[in-house]
Amino acid sequence: MIDQIVRDFLTRQTAGVLATTRSGGGVRQSVVYFALDGDRLLISTEPGRAKTKDVTRTGRASLCVMGGAPPYPSVTLEGPARIRTTGIGADTAELWSRMGGRPVEPMSDADLAAMNRVILEITIERVYGASYLDQGETT
Amino acid sequence: MIDQIVRDFLTRQTAGVLATTRSGGGVRQSVVYFALDGDRLLISTEPGRAKTKDVTRTGRASLCVMGGAPPYPSVTLEGPARIRTTGIGADTAELWSRMGGRPVEPMSDADLAAMNRVILEITIERVYGASYLDQGETT
Repeated sequence: MIDQIVRDFLTRQTAGVLATTRSGGGVRQSVVYFALDGDRLLISTEPGRAKTKDVTRTGRASLCVMGGAPPYPSVTLEGPARIRTTGIGADTAELWSRMGGRPVEPMSDADLAAMNRVILEITIERVYGASYLDQGETT
Repeated sequence: MIDQIVRDFLTRQTAGVLATTRSGGGVRQSVVYFALDGDRLLISTEPGRAKTKDVTRTGRASLCVMGGAPPYPSVTLEGPARIRTTGIGADTAELWSRMGGRPVEPMSDADLAAMNRVILEITIERVYGASYLDQGETT
């Protein structure tokens, strides 16, 4: 479902704009680091964040990933989303490795809980708005 | 209401992620070029676009603006939004000037209508999530 050109773009990019729906119905947007793993998007966040509560309540999220320079290559991905607190060591390490540019050792769920980290996971159900993805731009 | 540091960042950046709410309640996101004019965000789009229909229906929109490199400076702005088809020559010219990096002469509403252009205007009511805006990054 995810074209290779989209997959390659998502591998080159490390951050995107997450959108969730507020309890009042409005849209909340914020910048997040992400990792693509198969058909899942992984984001590391905190239990108390508004985006976490939105996902717990609505069960959905959207991520728009945009390159940093004209013509601004971009694509939007969305689908069912959930907050995970167990078995998150490998996914969190993968995210932190991407953010830091060097390998990070997986931590235990207990250590991550003590650090107030959870994984916001989106199962990609829909991909749209892919534009200029063949520009080969990197961040 | 808009801090000078936010204003300066929005002047340096030319594109952001627009979010609107679909008729079914989900979030729609896409990359747009924008211009800040006082407390308004201006976006040039087409009448038939889904984002245009969303704004006509809901009267609201959100824009998250993100720098192109780590630590990804960003801010989100939102508020009432509307679609304008008259008196849009100057705003459209300002947008195109920013996109192209050189002055563009204003066109008439009739010419812009023939080119299928409208202005999506957001009146900034809320600014949140401002992060790393003092990094001085440019796109």
